Amino acid sequence: MKRPCGVLLDLSGVLYVGEERLPGAREAVERLLEAGMPVALITNTTRSPRRAILEKLRRLGFDFPPDLLFTPSQAVRNELEATGTKAYMLIHPNLREELGDLEGPPFEAVVVGDAGEAFTYANLNRAFRLLMEGCPLLAMGRTRYFREPDGLSLDVGPFVAALEYAAGVEAVVLGKPAEAFFLAAVRVLGCEPPEVVMVGDDVDSDVIAARQAGLQALLVRTGKYRPGDDEKAKRYGAGTVDDIRAAVEEILR
Amino acid sequence: MKRPCGVLLDLSGVLYVGEERLPGAREAVERLLEAGMPVALITNTTRSPRRAILEKLRRLGFDFPPDLLFTPSQAVRNELEATGTKAYMLIHPNLREELGDLEGPPFEAVVVGDAGEAFTYANLNRAFRLLMEGCPLLAMGRTRYFREPDGLSLDVGPFVAALEYAAGVEAVVLGKPAEAFFLAAVRVLGCEPPEVVMVGDDVDSDVIAARQAGLQALLVRTGKYRPGDDEKAKRYGAGTVDDIRAAVEEILR
Repeated sequence: MKRPCGVLLDLSGVLYVGEERLPGAREAVERLLEAGMPVALITNTTRSPRRAILEKLRRLGFDFPPDLLFTPSQAVRNELEATGTKAYMLIHPNLREELGDLEGPPFEAVVVGDAGEAFTYANLNRAFRLLMEGCPLLAMGRTRYFREPDGLSLDVGPFVAALEYAAGVEAVVLGKPAEAFFLAAVRVLGCEPPEVVMVGDDVDSDVIAARQAGLQALLVRTGKYRPGDDEKAKRYGAGTVDDIRAAVEEILR
Repeated sequence: MKRPCGVLLDLSGVLYVGEERLPGAREAVERLLEAGMPVALITNTTRSPRRAILEKLRRLGFDFPPDLLFTPSQAVRNELEATGTKAYMLIHPNLREELGDLEGPPFEAVVVGDAGEAFTYANLNRAFRLLMEGCPLLAMGRTRYFREPDGLSLDVGPFVAALEYAAGVEAVVLGKPAEAFFLAAVRVLGCEPPEVVMVGDDVDSDVIAARQAGLQALLVRTGKYRPGDDEKAKRYGAGTVDDIRAAVEEILR
Protein backbone atom coordinates (compact mmCIF):
# COMPACT_ATOMS: atom_id res chain seq x y z
CA MET A 1 0.00 0.00 0.00
CA LYS A 2 1.36 3.44 -1.03
CA ARG A 3 1.10 5.95 1.82
CA PRO A 4 -2.39 7.45 1.46
CA CYS A 5 -3.40 11.12 1.36
CA GLY A 6 -6.18 10.67 3.91
CA VAL A 7 -8.15 8.16 5.99
CA LEU A 8 -11.86 7.59 6.59
CA LEU A 9 -12.73 5.77 9.79
CA ASP A 10 -15.95 3.97 10.59
CA LEU A 11 -16.88 4.31 14.28
CA SER A 12 -18.84 1.44 15.88
CA GLY A 13 -16.90 -1.81 15.60
CA VAL A 14 -13.67 0.04 14.71
CA LEU A 15 -13.12 2.50 17.57
CA TYR A 16 -15.61 1.09 20.06
CA VAL A 17 -18.37 -1.49 20.65
CA GLY A 18 -21.25 -0.20 22.76
CA GLU A 19 -19.68 1.95 25.49
CA GLU A 20 -16.32 0.14 25.38
CA ARG A 21 -13.35 1.56 23.51
CA LEU A 22 -11.56 -1.13 21.53
CA PRO A 23 -8.02 -1.94 22.72
CA GLY A 24 -5.41 0.50 21.42
CA ALA A 25 -7.96 2.51 19.43
CA ARG A 26 -7.18 5.87 21.03
CA GLU A 27 -3.43 5.48 20.60
CA ALA A 28 -3.89 4.38 16.99
CA VAL A 29 -5.95 7.45 16.10
CA GLU A 30 -3.43 9.69 17.87
CA ARG A 31 -0.61 8.14 15.84
CA LEU A 32 -2.48 8.97 12.63
CA LEU A 33 -3.08 12.58 13.65
CA GLU A 34 0.49 13.06 14.90
CA ALA A 35 1.75 11.78 11.55
CA GLY A 36 -0.20 14.67 9.97
CA MET A 37 -2.64 12.31 8.24
CA PRO A 38 -6.03 13.94 7.44
CA VAL A 39 -8.78 11.85 9.06
CA ALA A 40 -12.56 12.03 8.77
CA LEU A 41 -15.21 9.88 10.43
CA ILE A 42 -17.96 8.27 8.41
CA THR A 43 -20.70 6.39 10.21
CA ASN A 44 -24.10 4.94 9.38
CA THR A 45 -25.20 5.06 12.99
CA THR A 46 -28.69 6.56 13.11
CA ARG A 47 -29.65 5.67 16.67
CA SER A 48 -27.94 8.81 18.00
CA PRO A 49 -27.88 12.41 16.85
CA ARG A 50 -24.56 13.95 15.76
CA ARG A 51 -24.36 15.80 19.06
CA ALA A 52 -24.47 12.54 21.00
CA ILE A 53 -21.97 10.80 18.69
CA LEU A 54 -19.48 13.65 19.19
CA GLU A 55 -20.07 13.56 22.97
CA LYS A 56 -19.53 9.82 23.04
CA LEU A 57 -16.28 10.16 21.08
CA ARG A 58 -15.05 12.76 23.58
CA ARG A 59 -16.12 10.55 26.49
CA LEU A 60 -14.10 7.68 25.03
CA GLY A 61 -11.08 9.91 24.53
CA PHE A 62 -11.42 10.84 20.83
CA ASP A 63 -11.72 14.54 20.11
CA PHE A 64 -12.91 15.40 16.60
CA PRO A 65 -14.32 18.65 15.23
CA PRO A 66 -17.98 18.29 14.12
CA ASP A 67 -17.24 19.04 10.46
CA LEU A 68 -15.11 15.89 10.22
CA LEU A 69 -18.06 13.68 11.17
CA PHE A 70 -20.21 12.44 8.29
CA THR A 71 -23.62 11.00 9.20
CA PRO A 72 -26.65 9.98 7.12
CA SER A 73 -28.80 12.38 9.16
CA GLN A 74 -26.81 15.29 7.71
CA ALA A 75 -27.27 13.88 4.21
CA VAL A 76 -31.03 13.56 4.81
CA ARG A 77 -31.22 17.17 5.99
CA ASN A 78 -29.35 18.37 2.91
CA GLU A 79 -31.62 16.38 0.61
CA LEU A 80 -34.93 17.42 2.19
CA GLU A 81 -33.92 21.07 2.47
CA ALA A 82 -32.70 21.17 -1.13
CA THR A 83 -36.05 19.88 -2.37
CA GLY A 84 -38.21 21.69 0.23
CA THR A 85 -39.76 18.37 1.22
CA LYS A 86 -41.29 17.22 4.51
CA ALA A 87 -41.13 13.50 5.32
CA TYR A 88 -42.59 10.75 7.42
CA MET A 89 -39.69 9.87 9.72
CA LEU A 90 -39.35 6.18 10.60
CA ILE A 91 -36.37 6.93 12.85
CA HIS A 92 -35.06 6.31 16.34
CA PRO A 93 -36.62 8.56 19.01
CA ASN A 94 -33.11 9.87 19.75
CA LEU A 95 -32.85 11.27 16.22
CA ARG A 96 -35.95 13.47 16.54
CA GLU A 97 -33.92 16.33 18.05
CA GLU A 98 -31.94 16.42 14.81
CA LEU A 99 -34.58 15.75 12.14
CA GLY A 100 -37.90 16.45 13.85
CA ASP A 101 -38.32 19.84 12.15
CA LEU A 102 -38.32 18.10 8.76
CA GLU A 103 -41.25 15.86 9.65
CA GLY A 104 -44.63 16.51 7.96
CA PRO A 105 -47.48 16.71 7.43
CA PRO A 106 -47.48 16.99 4.52
CA PHE A 107 -45.70 13.67 4.02
CA GLU A 108 -43.93 13.87 0.66
CA ALA A 109 -41.20 11.31 1.36
CA VAL A 110 -40.44 8.43 3.73
CA VAL A 111 -37.14 8.56 5.63
CA VAL A 112 -35.94 5.33 7.27
CA GLY A 113 -33.11 5.10 9.77
CA ASP A 114 -32.13 2.46 12.29
CA ALA A 115 -35.29 3.03 14.31
CA GLY A 116 -34.68 0.12 16.71
CA GLU A 117 -37.74 -0.51 18.86
CA ALA A 118 -39.63 2.09 16.80
CA PHE A 119 -39.77 -0.48 13.99
CA THR A 120 -43.26 -1.49 15.02
CA TYR A 121 -45.79 -3.04 12.65
CA ALA A 122 -47.91 0.12 12.85
CA ASN A 123 -45.00 2.43 11.92
CA LEU A 124 -43.80 0.17 9.10
CA ASN A 125 -47.35 -0.05 7.77
CA ARG A 126 -47.68 3.72 7.81
CA ALA A 127 -44.46 4.06 5.81
CA PHE A 128 -45.67 1.34 3.40
CA ARG A 129 -48.95 3.12 2.72
CA LEU A 130 -47.14 6.38 1.93
CA LEU A 131 -44.84 4.53 -0.47
CA MET A 132 -47.90 3.05 -2.19
CA GLU A 133 -49.17 6.62 -2.64
CA GLY A 134 -45.96 7.47 -4.49
CA CYS A 135 -43.69 8.95 -1.79
CA PRO A 136 -39.97 8.28 -2.45
CA LEU A 137 -38.07 6.12 0.05
CA LEU A 138 -34.94 7.73 1.51
CA ALA A 139 -32.80 5.22 3.40
CA MET A 140 -30.08 6.15 5.89
CA GLY A 141 -27.97 3.21 4.78
CA ARG A 142 -28.50 -0.43 3.84
CA THR A 143 -26.41 -1.91 6.65
CA ARG A 144 -27.51 -5.45 7.49
CA TYR A 145 -26.55 -5.63 11.16
CA PHE A 146 -24.23 -4.23 13.78
CA ARG A 147 -22.56 -5.66 16.85
CA GLU A 148 -24.06 -4.97 20.25
CA PRO A 149 -22.38 -6.14 23.44
CA ASP A 150 -24.76 -9.17 23.56
CA GLY A 151 -24.61 -10.14 19.88
CA LEU A 152 -25.44 -9.04 16.35
CA SER A 153 -28.55 -6.89 15.90
CA LEU A 154 -30.65 -5.80 12.94
CA ASP A 155 -29.67 -2.48 11.41
CA VAL A 156 -31.67 -0.36 8.96
CA GLY A 157 -30.98 -2.46 5.84
CA PRO A 158 -33.43 -5.31 6.47
CA PHE A 159 -36.26 -2.83 7.07
CA VAL A 160 -35.38 -0.96 3.87
CA ALA A 161 -35.47 -4.32 2.06
CA ALA A 162 -38.88 -5.05 3.63
CA LEU A 163 -40.37 -1.74 2.46
CA GLU A 164 -38.83 -2.07 -1.01
CA TYR A 165 -40.29 -5.56 -1.35
CA ALA A 166 -43.71 -4.56 -0.01
CA ALA A 167 -44.20 -1.49 -2.19
CA GLY A 168 -42.17 -2.61 -5.22
CA VAL A 169 -39.88 0.43 -5.03
CA GLU A 170 -36.14 1.09 -4.76
CA ALA A 171 -34.72 3.25 -1.98
CA VAL A 172 -32.44 6.21 -2.50
CA VAL A 173 -29.60 5.62 -0.03
CA LEU A 174 -28.22 8.67 1.79
CA GLY A 175 -25.48 6.99 3.85
CA LYS A 176 -22.99 4.23 3.16
CA PRO A 177 -22.92 2.44 0.69
CA ALA A 178 -23.89 5.46 -1.46
CA GLU A 179 -20.92 6.71 -3.51
CA ALA A 180 -21.89 10.38 -2.96
CA PHE A 181 -21.64 9.88 0.80
CA PHE A 182 -18.02 8.67 0.55
CA LEU A 183 -17.07 11.36 -1.95
CA ALA A 184 -18.36 14.18 0.28
CA ALA A 185 -15.98 12.99 3.03
CA VAL A 186 -13.11 12.56 0.56
CA ARG A 187 -13.56 16.19 -0.57
CA VAL A 188 -13.24 17.48 2.99
CA LEU A 189 -9.92 15.62 3.32
CA GLY A 190 -8.67 17.43 0.21
CA CYS A 191 -7.71 14.14 -1.46
CA GLU A 192 -8.58 12.15 -4.57
CA PRO A 193 -10.62 8.97 -3.95
CA PRO A 194 -7.88 6.48 -4.93
CA GLU A 195 -5.55 8.10 -2.36
CA VAL A 196 -7.95 7.62 0.54
CA VAL A 197 -8.27 4.49 2.71
CA MET A 198 -11.59 3.57 4.30
CA VAL A 199 -11.23 1.48 7.49
CA GLY A 200 -14.33 -0.41 8.60
CA ASP A 201 -15.77 -3.58 10.10
CA ASP A 202 -18.65 -3.95 7.61
CA VAL A 203 -17.49 -5.81 4.53
CA ASP A 204 -20.48 -4.59 2.50
CA SER A 205 -21.19 -1.01 3.58
CA ASP A 206 -17.61 0.00 4.44
CA VAL A 207 -15.25 -2.07 2.36
CA ILE A 208 -16.94 -3.14 -0.86
CA ALA A 209 -18.88 0.14 -1.08
CA ALA A 210 -15.68 2.20 -0.64
CA ARG A 211 -13.95 0.16 -3.33
CA GLN A 212 -16.89 0.75 -5.67
CA ALA A 213 -16.61 4.50 -4.97
CA GLY A 214 -12.95 4.33 -6.07
CA LEU A 215 -11.29 4.37 -2.62
CA GLN A 216 -8.87 1.94 -1.02
CA ALA A 217 -10.25 -0.06 1.92
CA LEU A 218 -9.15 -2.10 4.91
CA LEU A 219 -11.40 -4.49 6.80
CA VAL A 220 -10.81 -4.96 10.54
CA ARG A 221 -11.50 -8.18 12.43
CA THR A 222 -13.36 -6.38 15.23
CA GLY A 223 -17.01 -5.36 15.64
CA LYS A 224 -19.35 -7.24 13.35
CA TYR A 225 -16.54 -9.03 11.47
CA ARG A 226 -17.35 -12.67 10.78
CA PRO A 227 -15.08 -15.39 9.35
CA GLY A 228 -15.34 -15.33 5.57
CA ASP A 229 -15.69 -11.55 5.38
CA ASP A 230 -11.95 -11.32 4.65
CA GLU A 231 -12.35 -13.52 1.56
CA LYS A 232 -15.19 -11.31 0.38
CA ALA A 233 -13.06 -8.16 0.93
CA LYS A 234 -10.18 -9.74 -0.98
CA ARG A 235 -12.37 -10.28 -4.04
CA TYR A 236 -12.82 -6.50 -4.12
CA GLY A 237 -9.13 -5.79 -3.74
CA ALA A 238 -9.25 -4.89 -0.05
CA GLY A 239 -7.00 -6.22 2.69
CA THR A 240 -7.96 -7.38 6.17
CA VAL A 241 -6.12 -6.58 9.42
CA ASP A 242 -6.74 -7.50 13.03
CA ASP A 243 -7.89 -4.13 14.33
CA ILE A 244 -7.50 -0.35 14.11
CA ARG A 245 -3.96 -0.61 15.52
CA ALA A 246 -2.90 -2.90 12.69
CA ALA A 247 -4.73 -0.71 10.19
CA VAL A 248 -2.77 2.36 11.28
CA GLU A 249 0.45 0.34 11.18
CA GLU A 250 -0.34 -0.61 7.59
CA ILE A 251 -1.34 2.94 6.58
CA LEU A 252 1.76 4.63 8.02
CA ARG A 253 4.20 2.00 6.82
CA MET B 1 -61.48 -21.33 -21.39
CA LYS B 2 -62.28 -25.06 -21.56
CA ARG B 3 -64.52 -26.14 -18.66
CA PRO B 4 -62.09 -26.98 -15.84
CA CYS B 5 -61.98 -30.14 -13.70
CA GLY B 6 -61.73 -28.18 -10.44
CA VAL B 7 -61.37 -24.76 -8.86
CA LEU B 8 -59.11 -23.35 -6.14
CA LEU B 9 -60.42 -20.25 -4.37
CA ASP B 10 -58.42 -17.75 -2.40
CA LEU B 11 -60.39 -16.39 0.57
CA SER B 12 -59.64 -12.82 1.72
CA GLY B 13 -60.23 -10.37 -1.11
CA VAL B 14 -62.17 -12.96 -3.13
CA LEU B 15 -64.98 -14.12 -0.84
CA TYR B 16 -64.73 -11.38 1.81
CA VAL B 17 -62.77 -8.35 3.03
CA GLY B 18 -62.46 -8.11 6.81
CA GLU B 19 -65.83 -9.24 8.19
CA GLU B 20 -67.77 -8.25 5.06
CA ARG B 21 -68.79 -10.81 2.47
CA LEU B 22 -68.17 -9.51 -1.06
CA PRO B 23 -71.33 -8.94 -3.14
CA GLY B 24 -72.67 -12.11 -4.73
CA ALA B 25 -69.87 -14.26 -3.32
CA ARG B 26 -72.11 -16.76 -1.56
CA GLU B 27 -74.37 -17.25 -4.58
CA ALA B 28 -71.34 -17.64 -6.84
CA VAL B 29 -69.83 -20.40 -4.70
CA GLU B 30 -73.21 -22.14 -4.48
CA ARG B 31 -73.46 -22.07 -8.27
CA LEU B 32 -70.08 -23.78 -8.53
CA LEU B 33 -71.01 -26.50 -6.05
CA GLU B 34 -74.45 -27.05 -7.60
CA ALA B 35 -72.77 -27.49 -10.97
CA GLY B 36 -70.81 -30.37 -9.38
CA MET B 37 -67.50 -28.54 -9.67
CA PRO B 38 -64.88 -29.72 -7.13
CA VAL B 39 -63.73 -26.71 -5.09
CA ALA B 40 -60.93 -26.31 -2.54
CA LEU B 41 -59.86 -23.25 -0.59
CA ILE B 42 -56.26 -22.15 -0.54
CA THR B 43 -55.27 -19.24 1.66
CA ASN B 44 -52.08 -17.67 2.93
CA THR B 45 -53.87 -16.12 5.91
CA THR B 46 -51.77 -16.79 8.99
CA ARG B 47 -53.42 -14.39 11.42
CA SER B 48 -56.08 -16.97 12.29
CA PRO B 49 -55.98 -20.69 13.03
CA ARG B 50 -57.80 -23.08 10.70
CA ARG B 51 -60.56 -23.43 13.26
CA ALA B 52 -61.27 -19.69 13.17
CA ILE B 53 -61.09 -19.53 9.36
CA LEU B 54 -63.67 -22.31 9.07
CA GLU B 55 -65.86 -20.59 11.68
CA LYS B 56 -65.62 -17.29 9.82
CA LEU B 57 -66.58 -18.98 6.56
CA ARG B 58 -69.63 -20.50 8.24
CA ARG B 59 -70.53 -17.14 9.80
CA LEU B 60 -70.40 -15.53 6.38
CA GLY B 61 -72.56 -18.28 4.88
CA PHE B 62 -69.92 -20.54 3.32
CA ASP B 63 -69.84 -24.10 4.59
CA PHE B 64 -66.74 -26.08 3.69
CA PRO B 65 -65.37 -29.29 5.18
CA PRO B 66 -61.99 -28.80 6.91
CA ASP B 67 -60.11 -31.09 4.53
CA LEU B 68 -60.86 -28.73 1.63
CA LEU B 69 -59.07 -25.83 3.36
CA PHE B 70 -55.34 -25.52 2.63
CA THR B 71 -53.36 -23.26 4.96
CA PRO B 72 -49.63 -22.66 5.43
CA SER B 73 -49.99 -23.60 9.10
CA GLN B 74 -50.87 -27.14 8.05
CA ALA B 75 -47.86 -27.23 5.72
CA VAL B 76 -45.61 -26.03 8.55
CA ARG B 77 -46.93 -28.75 10.86
CA ASN B 78 -46.32 -31.42 8.22
CA GLU B 79 -42.77 -30.15 7.62
CA LEU B 80 -41.77 -29.86 11.29
CA GLU B 81 -43.32 -33.20 12.23
CA ALA B 82 -41.67 -34.96 9.28
CA THR B 83 -38.26 -33.70 10.37
CA GLY B 84 -38.89 -33.89 14.13
CA THR B 85 -37.89 -30.25 14.45
CA LYS B 86 -38.93 -27.61 16.99
CA ALA B 87 -38.94 -23.99 15.85
CA TYR B 88 -38.89 -20.41 16.99
CA MET B 89 -42.36 -19.19 15.98
CA LEU B 90 -42.55 -15.60 14.76
CA ILE B 91 -46.31 -15.88 14.32
CA HIS B 92 -49.54 -14.14 15.24
CA PRO B 93 -50.71 -14.80 18.81
CA ASN B 94 -53.91 -16.29 17.34
CA LEU B 95 -51.88 -19.03 15.65
CA ARG B 96 -50.34 -20.31 18.88
CA GLU B 97 -53.30 -22.62 19.53
CA GLU B 98 -52.44 -24.37 16.27
CA LEU B 99 -48.63 -24.39 16.25
CA GLY B 100 -47.64 -23.71 19.86
CA ASP B 101 -46.78 -27.38 20.53
CA LEU B 102 -44.10 -27.20 17.81
CA GLU B 103 -42.26 -24.31 19.46
CA GLY B 104 -38.87 -24.97 21.05
CA PRO B 105 -36.55 -24.87 22.83
CA PRO B 106 -34.57 -26.31 21.22
CA PHE B 107 -34.87 -23.85 18.32
CA GLU B 108 -33.82 -25.71 15.18
CA ALA B 109 -35.74 -23.61 12.66
CA VAL B 110 -37.40 -20.22 12.38
CA VAL B 111 -41.05 -20.13 11.27
CA VAL B 112 -42.44 -16.79 10.08
CA GLY B 113 -46.11 -16.07 9.49
CA ASP B 114 -48.08 -12.86 9.23
CA ALA B 115 -47.40 -11.98 12.85
CA GLY B 116 -48.97 -8.50 12.67
CA GLU B 117 -48.22 -6.52 15.82
CA ALA B 118 -45.94 -9.37 16.97
CA PHE B 119 -43.43 -8.16 14.35
CA THR B 120 -41.53 -6.24 16.98
CA TYR B 121 -37.86 -5.36 16.71
CA ALA B 122 -37.07 -7.74 19.57
CA ASN B 123 -38.87 -10.69 17.94
CA LEU B 124 -37.33 -10.03 14.52
CA ASN B 125 -33.90 -9.75 16.11
CA ARG B 126 -34.36 -13.04 17.90
CA ALA B 127 -35.28 -14.72 14.61
CA PHE B 128 -32.28 -13.06 12.93
CA ARG B 129 -29.83 -14.35 15.53
CA LEU B 130 -31.13 -17.92 15.13
CA LEU B 131 -30.72 -17.63 11.36
CA MET B 132 -27.13 -16.46 11.86
CA GLU B 133 -26.59 -19.62 13.92
CA GLY B 134 -27.69 -21.69 10.94
CA CYS B 135 -31.40 -22.34 11.56
CA PRO B 136 -33.40 -22.66 8.33
CA LEU B 137 -36.08 -20.04 7.61
CA LEU B 138 -39.56 -21.46 6.94
CA ALA B 139 -41.92 -18.81 5.56
CA MET B 140 -45.70 -19.13 5.53
CA GLY B 141 -45.90 -17.31 2.20
CA ARG B 142 -44.21 -14.34 0.54
CA THR B 143 -47.37 -12.23 0.13
CA ARG B 144 -46.55 -8.52 -0.04
CA TYR B 145 -49.74 -7.03 1.40
CA PHE B 146 -53.44 -7.64 1.91
CA ARG B 147 -56.48 -5.42 1.99
CA GLU B 148 -57.92 -4.39 5.33
CA PRO B 149 -61.11 -2.32 5.57
CA ASP B 150 -59.01 0.85 6.06
CA GLY B 151 -56.37 0.20 3.37
CA LEU B 152 -53.53 -2.08 2.33
CA SER B 153 -51.43 -3.64 5.09
CA LEU B 154 -48.10 -5.45 5.24
CA ASP B 155 -48.31 -9.22 4.99
CA VAL B 156 -45.58 -11.76 5.79
CA GLY B 157 -43.53 -11.26 2.61
CA PRO B 158 -41.75 -8.02 3.54
CA PHE B 159 -40.63 -9.51 6.86
CA VAL B 160 -39.35 -12.63 5.12
CA ALA B 161 -37.44 -10.34 2.73
CA ALA B 162 -36.02 -8.44 5.73
CA LEU B 163 -34.75 -11.62 7.43
CA GLU B 164 -33.36 -13.01 4.17
CA TYR B 165 -31.49 -9.76 3.56
CA ALA B 166 -30.23 -9.52 7.14
CA ALA B 167 -28.91 -13.05 7.43
CA GLY B 168 -28.01 -13.64 3.77
CA VAL B 169 -30.27 -16.70 3.53
CA GLU B 170 -33.17 -17.84 1.38
CA ALA B 171 -36.49 -18.88 2.90
CA VAL B 172 -38.25 -22.16 2.23
CA VAL B 173 -41.83 -21.13 1.47
CA LEU B 174 -44.59 -23.36 2.83
CA GLY B 175 -47.64 -21.51 1.46
CA LYS B 176 -48.40 -19.76 -1.80
CA PRO B 177 -46.41 -19.16 -4.05
CA ALA B 178 -44.76 -22.57 -3.43
CA GLU B 179 -45.62 -25.04 -6.18
CA ALA B 180 -45.97 -27.92 -3.69
CA PHE B 181 -48.68 -26.02 -1.84
CA PHE B 182 -50.82 -25.67 -4.99
CA LEU B 183 -50.21 -29.27 -6.03
CA ALA B 184 -51.38 -30.65 -2.68
CA ALA B 185 -54.72 -28.91 -3.20
CA VAL B 186 -54.93 -30.03 -6.83
CA ARG B 187 -54.45 -33.66 -5.71
CA VAL B 188 -57.40 -33.43 -3.31
CA LEU B 189 -59.60 -32.20 -6.16
CA GLY B 190 -58.62 -35.31 -8.15
CA CYS B 191 -57.55 -33.22 -11.14
CA GLU B 192 -54.43 -32.54 -13.19
CA PRO B 193 -52.87 -29.07 -12.68
CA PRO B 194 -53.65 -27.73 -16.20
CA GLU B 195 -57.34 -28.55 -15.63
CA VAL B 196 -57.63 -26.51 -12.44
CA VAL B 197 -58.36 -22.78 -12.20
CA MET B 198 -56.99 -20.72 -9.31
CA VAL B 199 -59.10 -17.62 -8.53
CA GLY B 200 -57.40 -14.92 -6.47
CA ASP B 201 -56.87 -11.21 -5.89
CA ASP B 202 -53.07 -11.38 -5.51
CA VAL B 203 -51.40 -11.17 -8.89
CA ASP B 204 -48.11 -12.56 -7.51
CA SER B 205 -49.01 -15.20 -4.93
CA ASP B 206 -52.28 -16.41 -6.50
CA VAL B 207 -52.11 -15.81 -10.22
CA ILE B 208 -48.49 -15.86 -11.38
CA ALA B 209 -47.58 -18.54 -8.83
CA ALA B 210 -50.47 -20.77 -9.95
CA ARG B 211 -49.43 -20.34 -13.58
CA GLN B 212 -45.88 -21.29 -12.68
CA ALA B 213 -47.21 -24.42 -10.94
CA GLY B 214 -48.96 -25.36 -14.20
CA LEU B 215 -52.52 -24.29 -13.30
CA GLN B 216 -54.89 -21.89 -15.02
CA ALA B 217 -55.63 -18.67 -13.13
CA LEU B 218 -58.12 -15.83 -12.96
CA LEU B 219 -57.44 -12.51 -11.23
CA VAL B 220 -60.38 -10.68 -9.63
CA ARG B 221 -60.62 -6.89 -9.35
CA THR B 222 -61.62 -7.06 -5.67
CA GLY B 223 -59.56 -7.14 -2.46
CA LYS B 224 -55.99 -5.97 -2.95
CA TYR B 225 -56.33 -5.64 -6.74
CA ARG B 226 -54.62 -2.51 -8.08
CA PRO B 227 -54.73 -1.06 -11.60
CA GLY B 228 -51.91 -2.60 -13.64
CA ASP B 229 -52.22 -6.01 -11.98
CA ASP B 230 -54.37 -7.16 -14.93
CA GLU B 231 -51.54 -6.38 -17.37
CA LYS B 232 -49.13 -8.33 -15.19
CA ALA B 233 -51.55 -11.30 -15.07
CA LYS B 234 -51.94 -11.18 -18.85
CA ARG B 235 -48.19 -11.55 -19.34
CA TYR B 236 -48.49 -14.90 -17.55
CA GLY B 237 -51.47 -16.02 -19.62
CA ALA B 238 -54.09 -15.31 -16.95
CA GLY B 239 -57.33 -13.41 -17.45
CA THR B 240 -58.89 -10.80 -15.18
CA VAL B 241 -62.58 -10.51 -14.23
CA ASP B 242 -64.48 -8.09 -12.02
CA ASP B 243 -65.19 -10.39 -9.08
CA ILE B 244 -65.96 -13.94 -7.95
CA ARG B 245 -69.38 -13.78 -9.69
CA ALA B 246 -67.74 -13.05 -13.03
CA ALA B 247 -65.09 -15.72 -12.33
CA VAL B 248 -67.76 -18.38 -11.83
CA GLU B 249 -69.57 -17.17 -14.94
CA GLU B 250 -66.37 -17.65 -16.91
CA ILE B 251 -65.58 -21.05 -15.34
CA LEU B 252 -69.05 -22.53 -15.98
CA ARG B 253 -69.46 -21.08 -19.46
